[in-house]
Amino acid sequence: MTFKKTAETLPKGAHTLERDYYVNPDILQKEYENLFLNNWICAGRSTELNESGQYKVINMGTESAILLRDEEGNLKAHTNVCRHRGTRICEKETGQFSKSIQCGYHGWTYGLDGELKGAPHMDAVEGFQKTDYPLLSIPVAEWEGFIFINFSDNPQDFDTAFAPLFGRFKDWNIRDLVPMKTINYEVAGNWKLVIQNYCECYHCPILHPDLAAITPYLGGRNDLHEGPFLGGYMDFNEEKESVTASGHFCCPPLKDLKEDDLKRVYYYSIFPNMLLSLHPEYVMYHTVWPDGVDKCKVECTWLFAKDVVESEKHHTQDAVDFWDMTNKQDWHISELSQLGIQSKRYSPAPYSGQESLLAAFDQYYLGQLDKNN
Amino acid sequence: MTFKKTAETLPKGAHTLERDYYVNPDILQKEYENLFLNNWICAGRSTELNESGQYKVINMGTESAILLRDEEGNLKAHTNVCRHRGTRICEKETGQFSKSIQCGYHGWTYGLDGELKGAPHMDAVEGFQKTDYPLLSIPVAEWEGFIFINFSDNPQDFDTAFAPLFGRFKDWNIRDLVPMKTINYEVAGNWKLVIQNYCECYHCPILHPDLAAITPYLGGRNDLHEGPFLGGYMDFNEEKESVTASGHFCCPPLKDLKEDDLKRVYYYSIFPNMLLSLHPEYVMYHTVWPDGVDKCKVECTWLFAKDVVESEKHHTQDAVDFWDMTNKQDWHISELSQLGIQSKRYSPAPYSGQESLLAAFDQYYLGQLDKNN
Amino acid sequence: MTFKKTAETLPKGAHTLERDYYVNPDILQKEYENLFLNNWICAGRSTELNESGQYKVINMGTESAILLRDEEGNLKAHTNVCRHRGTRICEKETGQFSKSIQCGYHGWTYGLDGELKGAPHMDAVEGFQKTDYPLLSIPVAEWEGFIFINFSDNPQDFDTAFAPLFGRFKDWNIRDLVPMKTINYEVAGNWKLVIQNYCECYHCPILHPDLAAITPYLGGRNDLHEGPFLGGYMDFNEEKESVTASGHFCCPPLKDLKEDDLKRVYYYSIFPNMLLSLHPEYVMYHTVWPDGVDKCKVECTWLFAKDVVESEKHHTQDAVDFWDMTNKQDWHISELSQLGIQSKRYSPAPYSGQESLLAAFDQYYLGQLDKNN
Repeated sequence: MTFKKTAETLPKGAHTLERDYYVNPDILQKEYENLFLNNWICAGRSTELNESGQYKVINMGTESAILLRDEEGNLKAHTNVCRHRGTRICEKETGQFSKSIQCGYHGWTYGLDGELKGAPHMDAVEGFQKTDYPLLSIPVAEWEGFIFINFSDNPQDFDTAFAPLFGRFKDWNIRDLVPMKTINYEVAGNWKLVIQNYCECYHCPILHPDLAAITPYLGGRNDLHEGPFLGGYMDFNEEKESVTASGHFCCPPLKDLKEDDLKRVYYYSIFPNMLLSLHPEYVMYHTVWPDGVDKCKVECTWLFAKDVVESEKHHTQDAVDFWDMTNKQDWHISELSQLGIQSKRYSPAPYSGQESLLAAFDQYYLGQLDKNN
Repeated sequence: MTFKKTAETLPKGAHTLERDYYVNPDILQKEYENLFLNNWICAGRSTELNESGQYKVINMGTESAILLRDEEGNLKAHTNVCRHRGTRICEKETGQFSKSIQCGYHGWTYGLDGELKGAPHMDAVEGFQKTDYPLLSIPVAEWEGFIFINFSDNPQDFDTAFAPLFGRFKDWNIRDLVPMKTINYEVAGNWKLVIQNYCECYHCPILHPDLAAITPYLGGRNDLHEGPFLGGYMDFNEEKESVTASGHFCCPPLKDLKEDDLKRVYYYSIFPNMLLSLHPEYVMYHTVWPDGVDKCKVECTWLFAKDVVESEKHHTQDAVDFWDMTNKQDWHISELSQLGIQSKRYSPAPYSGQESLLAAFDQYYLGQLDKNN
Repeated sequence: MTFKKTAETLPKGAHTLERDYYVNPDILQKEYENLFLNNWICAGRSTELNESGQYKVINMGTESAILLRDEEGNLKAHTNVCRHRGTRICEKETGQFSKSIQCGYHGWTYGLDGELKGAPHMDAVEGFQKTDYPLLSIPVAEWEGFIFINFSDNPQDFDTAFAPLFGRFKDWNIRDLVPMKTINYEVAGNWKLVIQNYCECYHCPILHPDLAAITPYLGGRNDLHEGPFLGGYMDFNEEKESVTASGHFCCPPLKDLKEDDLKRVYYYSIFPNMLLSLHPEYVMYHTVWPDGVDKCKVECTWLFAKDVVESEKHHTQDAVDFWDMTNKQDWHISELSQLGIQSKRYSPAPYSGQESLLAAFDQYYLGQLDKNN
């Protein structure tokens, strides 16, 4: 985003990152260890898992989690690795357990709580105790209907980590919204290029003329300037109501929004890999998943009020189409950035005042990358 | 396989291998050097090369061998690398030489014995002697109609190495059997997962219900418990005669088999990459070829008596179909194991008594891997 | 090529290169640094860029250049990396600028001379001077209508480097020739195998019987024996006039050629990646581009007199077809060489007198590879 007063928050001498951060596989390994497998990452929506035993699989790099609703209706996550021979237990992206989780190789069987219940022939092994071999647990948290998991052995407390966001978006009632559409993208660029692209609208006049016609790129303000959560809002043009193909609401605005929030779109990046975009009548979020130094996967979901999704009289597809087009423009320019940055002649250059959030992202990123060294 | 008395042979504290052995490219290189290029590996059947000059090409990692029948009717193997500019001479998997082997680049020509016969214009090069540039020879051995080659510069004596197997399977007359069918598979898993999968039937009730209905997984016994050759037999269920789709003989049993052997299937792994399965009426063998840390190729061949293959009245396809289905089940679970073991949360776990042969395989494997260090 | 007197120029004990030079990625990196990004490389023909603002993109490894005709009609080359966020500016292989070069991300705009003209919002950044952020310049030179660029920060003077070739081919008037056809190839072999293949005709009788029928492989002579430029000529057979499908001229011979040159084809390799083949009635050139240790791309272009290309009465396709067939034969044998050389049993062998230019190429190559160490 670009914002009226961003120059205030741009650190003097702020520069783009060095080439190595976009091309070096050793840095990607460090990113997995210190960022993606050591922070709370968004794993989808609570409403995806309604029934007891319903599950979805979350894959991050070498790791895989089974996220499920247990018999008491709580969310749980287990490492998707059988404790016997290491087999990945769940292969499909989503599914439904009956009362237990069985590995398809030798039939080791776990409860929905991860406890090992059955391990044929292991009783005869000296010293073997079923209680020593549960599925390894992965912490789960929920906020505004979003599920977060943390692959770390010593995860930071979620409530402490997310405290700055608690209550911040209550007027949107995000917890009650439901997904209307999800699109998956593959981007031939480093994951940080996607985040950085999201963090400024300096590029909008050139890359997104249609978007720039809805939200003038100088009309906004940041309200989170540093740390893991960064962002702010942009005002709509006078004749515009929302980010849609028509520029008008594609359904009635969310009911509890204040006057000011009806005239704005809010954009936030939630470290390390979530992007949250709040419109007057819908909420969109992206999650970004590295796939090598020069590739990543992006999942984008549009959330609407339940009655809107169930009705057929609205134009929600207008919001999807507009952002799908804009997403593709962003992924393409990110791919061109990846190609250029790999050059030995690339060198860091100063950020403009319109890019203060990138400077803030880079700073936080560098601190996290080295936090265990 | 799983066996009545295996608990006896399971070393106390036997665990699955560490993650590194399935994901580390440096270990794969060591496996090539110390295992695959330093042991006798099965290269097919003697009957594939009937005529003088007939050849087949065997590729293992970076190496390639031309295996042929020479003018005296002997099997020979030569390195498939022209001594002039290093060109791979034979490209096709199989073929027929006339009297000589000619490189298609500059026409250097070798006898079937590998001696350099023609090297245009080289006479003018000071000190050049044709006798210094034969195709490099690769040792060949034959056992029960199987051809073995050894890429080592100092190969172990074949007769010493294979002595424990000599005469063991004489009642099957394997030398006289001929291939009825060969199927090639690609498996997205480390080669050892395929061997380990073969070495136990603990997984049969879950993964192969049809197979478990033919050979009850607890009805068997190991008779080779350690070293390069591992295996034993499994009894058929009372109403079953063989491993086929029908559960009955798909052709008459092999003529010299003793009573006991008519009621059993024998399974052996022959280090490093051969699997030999002896049924009352046919013999099946697999060869396994690494292709990166997380991929391998598997070739499976079904051998029958010559008159059975030549006749059309038998149901040999029943044996092929049944094992083809079972093979695919095994490759798929091996692929899931590869995915799970790559996790940083995978850790070695105890083997059950049903997996004693895996413990024995791992132990021998580790010893071979480090034998030159 | 093979030549009557080559034995004179073959250094005693000359051997093929060690395996490492064809399979080691570290050596490829050194080749990029010391050879491809540190020498003048052929970037096409001056006539490809006729209009002011017309451009083509040259990609070499991680690097990319925009080659263009500026407003004064001069050739210029700029690094294809925006100085702001490192974005690759030009994506298409060829195109046309109006008066300026604009990055599609944030609209930074450069003159055709590379100077930064517009950088929105950067004026507010303390200490930012547009003059500090031009597109980085890449030296350009022209010879016989060929364009050469040099990615080095300290390029050798072109006139000094190419002095040995100046005037050498003036009778062909290459500067006036125009491209009739370009074909792009991908070769699964190290780039040096393509150069080495070009440097001898010892392989012609076996690999190219049709070519050997036109130019007897022992009928020629080298006239450049060492250094970056290597080659000589081959005589045509008595009944042959040129290298075409028919063996006859496919159009009238070039007008200023001397009697002797009408009976010969000249072949030169121009270090590091250009091959120049001069026929009585046309000129063909290849450029070779590494793409990993075991792959390269080859571009081949046929140049003819302008009036020949504009007329429809000639058989220029005969030259293209003949060499396209021959090219493919050469790429295929180079691919087999790559496969063979990867073997641990490959070892360097003596060159014959017919391969003296390969010995000379290898010697110059090794010197260049280590020149900065």
